[in-house]
Amino acid sequence: MQDSTITSIGIDFGGTSVKLGVCRGGELLCTDEPITTANFAGPQALVGEMAARVAKLRKQHAAITAIGVGVPGLVDFENGYVHELTNVPGWKHVPLKAILGEKTGLPVIVENDANAMCYAEFRYGAARGLRNVVALTMGTGIGGGLVLDGRMYRGSCFAAGEIGQMSIDYDGVAGHYGNLGALEKYTGNHQIAEHAVRRYAEAGVGKDIEDCTPKKIAEAAAAGDNIARQIWDEVAEWLGTALASIGWLLNPDAFVIGGGVAQAGDLIFSPLKRKVQSMLSTVVWEKLQILPAKFSNEAGIIGNAALAADEA
Amino acid sequence: MQDSTITSIGIDFGGTSVKLGVCRGGELLCTDEPITTANFAGPQALVGEMAARVAKLRKQHAAITAIGVGVPGLVDFENGYVHELTNVPGWKHVPLKAILGEKTGLPVIVENDANAMCYAEFRYGAARGLRNVVALTMGTGIGGGLVLDGRMYRGSCFAAGEIGQMSIDYDGVAGHYGNLGALEKYTGNHQIAEHAVRRYAEAGVGKDIEDCTPKKIAEAAAAGDNIARQIWDEVAEWLGTALASIGWLLNPDAFVIGGGVAQAGDLIFSPLKRKVQSMLSTVVWEKLQILPAKFSNEAGIIGNAALAADEA
Repeated sequence: MQDSTITSIGIDFGGTSVKLGVCRGGELLCTDEPITTANFAGPQALVGEMAARVAKLRKQHAAITAIGVGVPGLVDFENGYVHELTNVPGWKHVPLKAILGEKTGLPVIVENDANAMCYAEFRYGAARGLRNVVALTMGTGIGGGLVLDGRMYRGSCFAAGEIGQMSIDYDGVAGHYGNLGALEKYTGNHQIAEHAVRRYAEAGVGKDIEDCTPKKIAEAAAAGDNIARQIWDEVAEWLGTALASIGWLLNPDAFVIGGGVAQAGDLIFSPLKRKVQSMLSTVVWEKLQILPAKFSNEAGIIGNAALAADEA
Repeated sequence: MQDSTITSIGIDFGGTSVKLGVCRGGELLCTDEPITTANFAGPQALVGEMAARVAKLRKQHAAITAIGVGVPGLVDFENGYVHELTNVPGWKHVPLKAILGEKTGLPVIVENDANAMCYAEFRYGAARGLRNVVALTMGTGIGGGLVLDGRMYRGSCFAAGEIGQMSIDYDGVAGHYGNLGALEKYTGNHQIAEHAVRRYAEAGVGKDIEDCTPKKIAEAAAAGDNIARQIWDEVAEWLGTALASIGWLLNPDAFVIGGGVAQAGDLIFSPLKRKVQSMLSTVVWEKLQILPAKFSNEAGIIGNAALAADEA
């Protein structure tokens, strides 16, 4: 049940650090210093530190009644069990909900980080007030989350929302799972950079891959570089194809896009909107918004706290 | 709320005829003679005939408490309003729920036909007992329906489930809406036949398109024709790419496939399963079933009756 009056803790568990904050109604009341994961040998020690931080935050905010933790990997949401975090050594088969719940005495939910980001945007961000929301986080890979009919949709084993693995070409580049045409093999940060190096080379311009990050391509495009603009148009073709397919399948109210690529602003959003419109019926397109995410670094804390408040 | 004890009428409104039946708990208790749409000049007359048939069926089954109508086109489910049926002259902007409700005094729901088929399979068919179900009806076009978290998912303007419009190639064949790579432009009945004619021609075999219907290609493949087998493998590549994308996005329990192509049986299901497995993670694949539909001609009546029982 959606409840904006509950005070809860959101924990954003990343590859290198764990960020914590206290939230109520989508507002970040306070944060604590991030925990550096490398300083703790294994899950027990790290969860112990999380619990200590929670105890400290509860002294400042007595009203805290739930904890939401988002992790960069597949979880069993129902049991609050972490299958594996490939970027965090030792995190395999960890009953996080049980351990943290026992140590703190508070109800805990454990969620995938892209789902938490989606929920933050749905409840308090760019898609606030909408009912069917598809969120994408664009970085090295492309994660996603779905809120459908006003609730987080998780799928049959809590693995839904893997937009980066969807195919945009049945005969295309193989993704991590051998999945031909995987979107993130076209529009992941590294793939965009590689593509840019090729496009510049074709135009007789030598560029290193470090000079072709999405940020730098965006700067070049903004400064009037036609090759850079063309690169964004191509990214929009690929990304727009996947969004249009999702549009046909789910007929959502909004796509919310966060991460590095989204920071290119109109350079990506303008051609992306044109592409998606060109691929949809008027009925589906007219109902659809394509929005930049409201939250960035704080999305995880706010989304996990909101999920804890609404679902724990 | 799911209720298998309610007796309701399912009406399956097709391009040429309207079929009616009385159902309870997924059982078809009786049917009435189909109504030929061409015999009635416009919606008022046709709905009048539907109401007369309903009155007749109620004399035989006094327990009837609701009516579900499925139509071949886009509806406003909430208001029971038919936007347009391109295959039925005069059916544009028809408040079907209001008219039929007024004429019969019963609660009416109006649904898209592919959604009704999906609901039939979810409640009483191949996907009974499962929670997240994606259904496809394969014919001239490819329709689809979604049951997510145990309920019909309709999308923001009741247009969800258009699997045939999803793209399998960002640079592919244009669909009806200009959508490049639209699945049904590869695996619609006519496209399969055209593809088969080409494949046979490449092998020096002249075939007319009438000899290349999915049914005839299936017969040829079953009889050991290698070209026919290859054609089914290719159809599986295209269809499997779309299903894998949906698998990544929705992590469903099952795909249920009905219509002509599904009748090719293992000829299509075997390569299709191999293809989808090759494109998914183990976690998602192990949870997933790819099933032939249980219902065929009666899917519409049963699905609409079930929706009326559960939602009207």
